[in-house]
Amino acid sequence: MTEIIAPITASPSLEEIRTRLCRVRQSMEQAGLEYYAVAHTDNVYYLTNFSYIPFERPFFLIITLDGPLVMVLPGLELSHAEDRVIPEVTYKTYYEFPAPSGQGFVDALQEVIPANARVGIESSLSIGIKDMLPGNLSVADLVDEARVVKSDYEIGRIAYACQVCDEGLKKVLELSKPGALELTLYSETVRQMMGKVILEAPGLNLLVSKFVSAVWPKILSAQPHSVPGLFDTLEAGGPQVTILAAQTDGYSAELERTFFIGHVPEEAIAPFKAMEEARNLAYELVKPGVRAEDIDRAVLQVLRDAGYGDHILHRTGHGFGITGHEPPWIALGSDAVLKKNMVISIEPGIYIKGLGGFRHSDTVLVTENGCQALTNGPETLEKLVFPV
Amino acid sequence: MTEIIAPITASPSLEEIRTRLCRVRQSMEQAGLEYYAVAHTDNVYYLTNFSYIPFERPFFLIITLDGPLVMVLPGLELSHAEDRVIPEVTYKTYYEFPAPSGQGFVDALQEVIPANARVGIESSLSIGIKDMLPGNLSVADLVDEARVVKSDYEIGRIAYACQVCDEGLKKVLELSKPGALELTLYSETVRQMMGKVILEAPGLNLLVSKFVSAVWPKILSAQPHSVPGLFDTLEAGGPQVTILAAQTDGYSAELERTFFIGHVPEEAIAPFKAMEEARNLAYELVKPGVRAEDIDRAVLQVLRDAGYGDHILHRTGHGFGITGHEPPWIALGSDAVLKKNMVISIEPGIYIKGLGGFRHSDTVLVTENGCQALTNGPETLEKLVFPV
Repeated sequence: MTEIIAPITASPSLEEIRTRLCRVRQSMEQAGLEYYAVAHTDNVYYLTNFSYIPFERPFFLIITLDGPLVMVLPGLELSHAEDRVIPEVTYKTYYEFPAPSGQGFVDALQEVIPANARVGIESSLSIGIKDMLPGNLSVADLVDEARVVKSDYEIGRIAYACQVCDEGLKKVLELSKPGALELTLYSETVRQMMGKVILEAPGLNLLVSKFVSAVWPKILSAQPHSVPGLFDTLEAGGPQVTILAAQTDGYSAELERTFFIGHVPEEAIAPFKAMEEARNLAYELVKPGVRAEDIDRAVLQVLRDAGYGDHILHRTGHGFGITGHEPPWIALGSDAVLKKNMVISIEPGIYIKGLGGFRHSDTVLVTENGCQALTNGPETLEKLVFPV
Repeated sequence: MTEIIAPITASPSLEEIRTRLCRVRQSMEQAGLEYYAVAHTDNVYYLTNFSYIPFERPFFLIITLDGPLVMVLPGLELSHAEDRVIPEVTYKTYYEFPAPSGQGFVDALQEVIPANARVGIESSLSIGIKDMLPGNLSVADLVDEARVVKSDYEIGRIAYACQVCDEGLKKVLELSKPGALELTLYSETVRQMMGKVILEAPGLNLLVSKFVSAVWPKILSAQPHSVPGLFDTLEAGGPQVTILAAQTDGYSAELERTFFIGHVPEEAIAPFKAMEEARNLAYELVKPGVRAEDIDRAVLQVLRDAGYGDHILHRTGHGFGITGHEPPWIALGSDAVLKKNMVISIEPGIYIKGLGGFRHSDTVLVTENGCQALTNGPETLEKLVFPV
């Protein structure tokens, strides 16, 4: 049964942020850490609602088990942080990068973290910065782990990003005629997606907003990570693969469809059907308690059984949230077990040089007993052939 | 004497790339390294012309002293890389991230780098990845160092990005009237900048192109890293500070101006003049052989002598190139000594709460005997007061 998920555009409440912090502190306690240094911009945003472009100036949110949060940041950004940060935070500014002796970020950190403290750090931290941090450091991705299961609030935020992708898909399909310029598809669709968000979420933070729309024409569609040229044009036939992706004020979604213009080449039918079958199996398998790796194995086996084993370029899916591509990985080699309120993509694909690429992708919520797509678009071959 | 720098939009030649590689190999030899692992996207782009969004899948360009270049990358990106890479490269693909045993990026790297080899790595590499690399690792930012002094080709590319900023500045100043919406300033100016580049550099790679235009209205101008709201409007008076920044197919520039609409408040004249004096001194001091730190010290002293010591938020400037903010840092605490063909910003600023921010920024080339701005815009107070 499909639940209706109401889209949310408002900033997180203090309560929401406190719940997140509480989860991180529990993990700190279990790991025997006295301090945790958050430096990844997406993790700082998750815990504070503050986003920024660090350039070369490092920012840290320092968490203790029971003391106040401390944000170490360049003085240049203080008032910007004060405008956005939701939880109570003590600010510790440093002057610049680089800085004269005593006025840099390491000096500021040394005043916040005792030299002998047990300090957790993220595996994404650069080795250059790690080598300058005070404390006895150990790597533990506690915030990343807290982010894997989404709150109801976060699901509402992602559902909104999905709505934006839904509208983008309608627009890009409407514009996809033989001779249509990539430049036009991109600019008109992005304008529509951005316009919607600007009107509906007027306080949105552009630093964490991003809109992508493109069609991989038949000739490029078997190269899913190539970049279509702005003056490339669509031709009749297909497959063409369109990608709509949005980060709307912090939260991400994607919606992708394989479609045809005018007619479906005979040789494209079988791979489309195999992709469809693999995708349907994924929707059946995704539910709490299932190992992500087992889903990927079974789904890719459908493609292999149909004879496309040499045409697989990627796993079944990935998680969504603030980063866009994030755990859980629905992939062989992943140790994730699905839980209610994870949000993932389902996107098994087939890529055949000369013929093209075959992939749908949706942003999908793991529910109590199964899953439900938060994005909406036509799915079957009949609904994905558009008039010339 | 001002030299005319012809803007360039073409991709680098094989010769240009070979010269870059040669510099890196010389540094490897001096450092006693057998292998160098390039993982930062901007460094890979510098040495290959290939840009990509790695998401969670790591890419490496492995350099040896005399063998072929090897690029380790996910299979998903192979044809994309083949389309863009300029030098001769051997590709070593891995399947996915994560991947089943034997099929991940570490397995691929182990086939390329012997376990006992002396391997140089970048300080920007994450500790999570570093811990998985084969070889005896030592940190040395050889590519970053090679990038600090620009070639004539690179200067031409940056000069083009400067032209784009120049046109953006004209547009944004023309639109800056009382009541003008930030949304309009942003969208109209970015459209103009992007439109120019799309027409003049039709093969441009959107993955390394970026356009920024905004005006920090008086009320926000003392917070240089805040984000103006899209529905904020300009008022008469000032100071207003506008930022134009462009990365045009890989290379970056910026142009910033403090301006006024209709009239200049009496109390804004002195800080504008102090900023102007500091900036003029910077232009006098910047030349080969001068220590970056000495420039910053002297320039900030002008602001202090004028009574604005408590209103300094940042150093005099930073380098430009592919990354936008990059060494050399024109800052206290920097150990850089200026050389011919470095490209830097000159942008001393004063920030007074309630009154506003005062900062011009230009993209400036260090020449044989001094320096010359590659960006162009009005500079004096008289030329920066626009009619209501």
